Amino acid sequence: MSGGLPSVEAAVALLTRLPGVGRKSAQRMVAHLLREGPQGIAQLSAALTTMQERVRACSRCFNLAEAELCWICADPKRQSAQLCVVEEASDLMAMERAGSFRGVYHVLGGALSPIDGVGPEDLNLGALLERMRSESIEEVIIATNPTVSGEATAHYLTAMLHGLQGVDVTVSRLAYGMPMGGELEYLDESTLYQALAGRRPL
Amino acid sequence: MSGGLPSVEAAVALLTRLPGVGRKSAQRMVAHLLREGPQGIAQLSAALTTMQERVRACSRCFNLAEAELCWICADPKRQSAQLCVVEEASDLMAMERAGSFRGVYHVLGGALSPIDGVGPEDLNLGALLERMRSESIEEVIIATNPTVSGEATAHYLTAMLHGLQGVDVTVSRLAYGMPMGGELEYLDESTLYQALAGRRPL
Repeated sequence: MSGGLPSVEAAVALLTRLPGVGRKSAQRMVAHLLREGPQGIAQLSAALTTMQERVRACSRCFNLAEAELCWICADPKRQSAQLCVVEEASDLMAMERAGSFRGVYHVLGGALSPIDGVGPEDLNLGALLERMRSESIEEVIIATNPTVSGEATAHYLTAMLHGLQGVDVTVSRLAYGMPMGGELEYLDESTLYQALAGRRPL
Repeated sequence: MSGGLPSVEAAVALLTRLPGVGRKSAQRMVAHLLREGPQGIAQLSAALTTMQERVRACSRCFNLAEAELCWICADPKRQSAQLCVVEEASDLMAMERAGSFRGVYHVLGGALSPIDGVGPEDLNLGALLERMRSESIEEVIIATNPTVSGEATAHYLTAMLHGLQGVDVTVSRLAYGMPMGGELEYLDESTLYQALAGRRPL
């Protein structure tokens, strides 16, 4: 899509800023939208704008919400003694798709990354400490990503939580290991290392 | 992303209508857009709307264009004796990314598919016939998809082009075979069959 179509190039450039969208898929999206006609684009733009206007952070856990509390914090059936800490709302959604966690969440809004200038003060840690004191939380499950910054954040959180005066809480971390459906042959070495170290008796 | 966030669900539903976008990636996109803030969505909506307003079909080949002719038809360096027929403008873009074709194109706007009610009258075939008569085309390269409807369209086109009175044209089809970088072990049987049948002496 070289030369001549600046309006298409502009749209493609903005679409490739979305996660998981490369140049090829952006071009395919653009071709699809143009085929659909003006109504499709108007509908999509309106839906995105409405979403932007309505959505805010849950005042308790920083998940996406359209009201003061998100749908999880507002659900009396969720077990508030179990708190799962995630980096982003999209991680919370992935956990919810898995469907086995019945507790509540805390969305940090990122992970510690000195290189990118993200320090503890940039994450929703003050609110987490506040929750540790005011709510009856028995276990904190750290579900940050298995990346350098996610691991650093997990370590920081563990130290912070263990250091809390007058709060007795279990801190745990999601297990490392083989992804289901994958093949051992194609696993990277550090995953295999972790899978071996974390082996469980049958 | 169950319960409670209708505005997000509406945006996710529209995003999943884009090619290659499933529910997971739509949720990731939405989370990203919300993180970026209102400006990102406004910019994206504006770019899509501008593109929709400016883009039309090239009057000669039906590629996307912002003027009467697309950037390929307007380029005097393209060899107009070679015509490559594709289903959609996105296929043309894929060909252009490959970068080795120096001729011109004709975009059909789809492929024959009786099941979906797409017949010859729904494709840009009249304009193709008109071009065969008025332009000095020596070779037509059929680059429809290697799918049932793409193959049916290729057969239909071949018969149509060979039946033209007073027009002497070579009709060819893109080769079938192994995709580069793939592994034989993971190839489907019909591709392997085609790769064997189309083997070339070294």
